[in-house]
Amino acid sequence: MVNERVAFQGERGAYSEMATLQHFPNAELIPMKSFQEVFDSLKHSTANFAVVPVENSIEGSVNETYDLLLRTDLSVSGEIYQRINHCLIANWGTNSIIKKMAYSHPQALAQCRCYLQKKQLEPIATYDTAGSVKMIKQKKITDGVAIASRRAAEIYDMEILEEGIEDRKNNFTRFLVLSKIETQPTGHDKTSIIFSVKHIPGALFIIIKEFAIRNINLTRIESRPTKETPWEYNFYLDFEGHIDDETIQEVLKSIKSKTTFVRILGSYKGAEIRPSI
Amino acid sequence: MVNERVAFQGERGAYSEMATLQHFPNAELIPMKSFQEVFDSLKHSTANFAVVPVENSIEGSVNETYDLLLRTDLSVSGEIYQRINHCLIANWGTNSIIKKMAYSHPQALAQCRCYLQKKQLEPIATYDTAGSVKMIKQKKITDGVAIASRRAAEIYDMEILEEGIEDRKNNFTRFLVLSKIETQPTGHDKTSIIFSVKHIPGALFIIIKEFAIRNINLTRIESRPTKETPWEYNFYLDFEGHIDDETIQEVLKSIKSKTTFVRILGSYKGAEIRPSI
Repeated sequence: MVNERVAFQGERGAYSEMATLQHFPNAELIPMKSFQEVFDSLKHSTANFAVVPVENSIEGSVNETYDLLLRTDLSVSGEIYQRINHCLIANWGTNSIIKKMAYSHPQALAQCRCYLQKKQLEPIATYDTAGSVKMIKQKKITDGVAIASRRAAEIYDMEILEEGIEDRKNNFTRFLVLSKIETQPTGHDKTSIIFSVKHIPGALFIIIKEFAIRNINLTRIESRPTKETPWEYNFYLDFEGHIDDETIQEVLKSIKSKTTFVRILGSYKGAEIRPSI
Repeated sequence: MVNERVAFQGERGAYSEMATLQHFPNAELIPMKSFQEVFDSLKHSTANFAVVPVENSIEGSVNETYDLLLRTDLSVSGEIYQRINHCLIANWGTNSIIKKMAYSHPQALAQCRCYLQKKQLEPIATYDTAGSVKMIKQKKITDGVAIASRRAAEIYDMEILEEGIEDRKNNFTRFLVLSKIETQPTGHDKTSIIFSVKHIPGALFIIIKEFAIRNINLTRIESRPTKETPWEYNFYLDFEGHIDDETIQEVLKSIKSKTTFVRILGSYKGAEIRPSI
């Protein structure tokens, strides 16, 4: 059996770590400071898998991941949905002290906006949810709290003052598994590609049409600036089917001449969305 | 003549203020702490115009603005492109002191990523570019710098250590002008709408097709989570033409029965993109 070493971004206790454990319960987990380092660790074989967030059901796309996917030659080989359940976390025994600041990643702060307003907590942006827990512990902060997962509170042995403080309960993050390997069809697959179109009216329509006429179900379309030329975009498309399927091979062949660029990120078994409870 | 009072998000010297001045050179400018307050000030007539960023040519969409546009009944009545030119700003006379930290908005920090790595400056996220300049001045910080506009340095009388530190020079932000008024056609107009589609294969194709068969040029498509149901999206579409044009009225009528929701944000004179120099 392959010794699975899986890289993720963030401190121990990050939601990325929880997603990684869900998919790789027995793997060696390798925390990395940045998304760039996660991609690099796989490229340089420090890890043989990586787990990266691509979108959140409330906040939308994780832009940095999309930009890194464009420049990598790694394959997408899996998909994970992770429920996001934010906790208000503090140093033990400081419950009676008035809390003024809430430290967390900007996306977590945004997801608890109404709660923070109600509790008159000033949001302070940090680089990491679990990292904020570690920070308020190390600095012995008593007039502030961190927002992170239950797992982060447990790992750093901190007190959970309140659980489920996110404004909306339908809060999930979708992660992709990256590796150097390509997967076999399972019958329940999705494929992710990136493409850009010519600057002519109807250019995007021409591409989408190729999928529509073959009854291929699109599940996601996202655009990102090319960065080279202002207001030119790369489109990220997810659809049902595997690159080994005849229909998918056909559609990919047909769009090749109609795009200025196309890259197949990979085919992978689509994960079930866990119903919110 | 109408007394123009224009709200923008950020401190004096923010890029939003520069964009506002470009479009409203003689207006009374009203700085607001948050995007929500910008929208509210217009709703409550504290301001009669607002200027909000929607996308940056490097970093992509400004998600918070898109989410607020969904919930507002204000109209889009103009478009502005603002060149982003980041400066490294410090307290006067501290040039020889070793700088360790760089304070700025996460998007500005992301746009100077390579520069910061080269100079070994640790990025510290704050809520505002110009606000960071104000902060390092007020706190008399000597071992850190702020990243913001030349205008911010001038307003707060701070030293510019280096100019044009952004990693890519094709750096523009697109802003929309909001108001309660609807504009007249100019012959060079764009229209912005939001819609969502039914959950059936080819649903997006059916909408895009209505524009394609009428030779209406799409200039932007963006998706955002509905937040109500995970993995359901609202699409934001910009296209050429004015809602008073016959063809545009036709296409809007035709998509009405094919969408689950459609909202017209407004028609406005399209701004020329200033070439990078």
